[in-house]
Amino acid sequence: MKNKFTENFIIDKFLKKLNFNKKGTYNFENDASYLSLNKKYKLAVTTDTILENIDFFKKDNPKSIAQKIMTVNLSDIFAMGANPHSYLLNLCLPSYIDNEWFKNFTQELKKIQLKYNFYLIGGDLSKSKNLIISSTFFGYIKKNKEVFQNKFNISDEIWVSGNIGDSKIGLEILRKNISLGTNLDNFFIKKYYYPKPCKLGPKISKYCSSMKDSSDGLIGDLNKILNNKAGALINLKDIPLSLRVKKIIKSKIEIKLETLLNAGDDYSLIFISNPKNRKKIKNIAFKNKIKITQIGKIVRTKGIHFDSYINIDNYREYDHFT
Amino acid sequence: MKNKFTENFIIDKFLKKLNFNKKGTYNFENDASYLSLNKKYKLAVTTDTILENIDFFKKDNPKSIAQKIMTVNLSDIFAMGANPHSYLLNLCLPSYIDNEWFKNFTQELKKIQLKYNFYLIGGDLSKSKNLIISSTFFGYIKKNKEVFQNKFNISDEIWVSGNIGDSKIGLEILRKNISLGTNLDNFFIKKYYYPKPCKLGPKISKYCSSMKDSSDGLIGDLNKILNNKAGALINLKDIPLSLRVKKIIKSKIEIKLETLLNAGDDYSLIFISNPKNRKKIKNIAFKNKIKITQIGKIVRTKGIHFDSYINIDNYREYDHFT
Repeated sequence: MKNKFTENFIIDKFLKKLNFNKKGTYNFENDASYLSLNKKYKLAVTTDTILENIDFFKKDNPKSIAQKIMTVNLSDIFAMGANPHSYLLNLCLPSYIDNEWFKNFTQELKKIQLKYNFYLIGGDLSKSKNLIISSTFFGYIKKNKEVFQNKFNISDEIWVSGNIGDSKIGLEILRKNISLGTNLDNFFIKKYYYPKPCKLGPKISKYCSSMKDSSDGLIGDLNKILNNKAGALINLKDIPLSLRVKKIIKSKIEIKLETLLNAGDDYSLIFISNPKNRKKIKNIAFKNKIKITQIGKIVRTKGIHFDSYINIDNYREYDHFT
Repeated sequence: MKNKFTENFIIDKFLKKLNFNKKGTYNFENDASYLSLNKKYKLAVTTDTILENIDFFKKDNPKSIAQKIMTVNLSDIFAMGANPHSYLLNLCLPSYIDNEWFKNFTQELKKIQLKYNFYLIGGDLSKSKNLIISSTFFGYIKKNKEVFQNKFNISDEIWVSGNIGDSKIGLEILRKNISLGTNLDNFFIKKYYYPKPCKLGPKISKYCSSMKDSSDGLIGDLNKILNNKAGALINLKDIPLSLRVKKIIKSKIEIKLETLLNAGDDYSLIFISNPKNRKKIKNIAFKNKIKITQIGKIVRTKGIHFDSYINIDNYREYDHFT
């Protein structure tokens, strides 16, 4: 069995089912693929790499690794106001990867593809010491409907989707090997292992000045939106936290709010919009059963300001490279 | 200086110059990019990964590594009958990568971009133990002008561009630390370190039944084209070899023809065409100063047959993964 684990075997047995029989993929028998778009649309493109020992670990469930490589990219596609179209997968595979791993990994990919309606268009397989997964995602977007990441006006409202910090608490539980009780542990660890992208972006993009996903922490990503052109006044009590997180913060034992404001991997959507669009946006979010919260507004004074005291001196922009 | 070597520093200092000020790249300040194509065109997409210790070595000139990641992808784009449009670059960088490395690497990228007229549209930076480079390339192609890799008729002619085996001899000189004399060594080693893609594909695609680049060896790639549907009769004396290679083979010391027929990294174009198109194709190649040679024809009997005896029993399809 071992020496049957070739490029062709992996493609035939595990990857072909992910192309959803789309014509331009040539059943993965060509060196490249074709991508056709209705002429009303343009293409959004994003790419991300996740690495063993940095973004995940060898012992992690392949389904979690599949969820992570999909979410980092889907989150960017949605935050561009686009809907997912297709993706490429570059797998650098160490020798411990086997049939069972591939079965679980590709089962999860297929589940996510069916959920958001996109297909695998091609990719590349190599051997390596550690597991490294790069993926390039294509999204389609109506022409002239692109969203920006750095456009806003003074007094625009700042919104965020979902809750902040759940994933970070899961990571801390695992990293420090602590317990908050089985139920809480399971809740937060699942949020860390299976982060979900927020699909609201393309549905509200025409009512927004700027949108961005918060993969690097709410404050870091808000700073990237502000781009040193204006400031943000944030109402601390409005930061959306799950009831479970509120309890933990009150106990002051395990985690502080300032940590959660800088924590990555939430994949919330941060968006900036004119107050006149508030009702429309809230209606769309309600219909899609997505929690959104206004956390502040754009102000003239540069920087991020809070309505009450918080120690974020130790804030630093998250850098993937250093 | 060391701690200034951040994601933003690398993007600002080295990568921004590669976007050629194209609008959809947002100066690399967004999480994703937009790709716009004239509606007459569709998009060809290909992706490849090259790894330290497999496709190149730590001590290799960064300009050679740049040439390799460009050529593996450009070669696929041209062989699809497309012209390069733009590309994404995912860099997993070990700690030995410094300013000097990046300067040389990106200088060479820019040179190649200017030569073939395409730009960097986005990418991703991560830290890793070994240098790993993935790149996704986009090519544009007129609608309904796609070329296939597995379409042909009996008696179609089989052609190949350039010469076979130069790169392989360079690799053997380096691997076995042998010398054929300084001039020959330099010639072949340069062919190995700086492989060039063949840009003929989009110029002749409408006269061809199938096209493919020969990145995995002439026989391996020809077998992929044949796809067990028909056979090829190859005239051994017509295999295009440089004068330098012919001399070496005659001496029977260093290398055999059968080795060169299975040698990868030539990036020649293999194409299959109806005899009636011979004159048109030869004219286009002549105008573009590209050597092309008819090496055989498609026959009914499956497999690859030679007009005279050659020992290719030890042939095996190249597999990137095993």
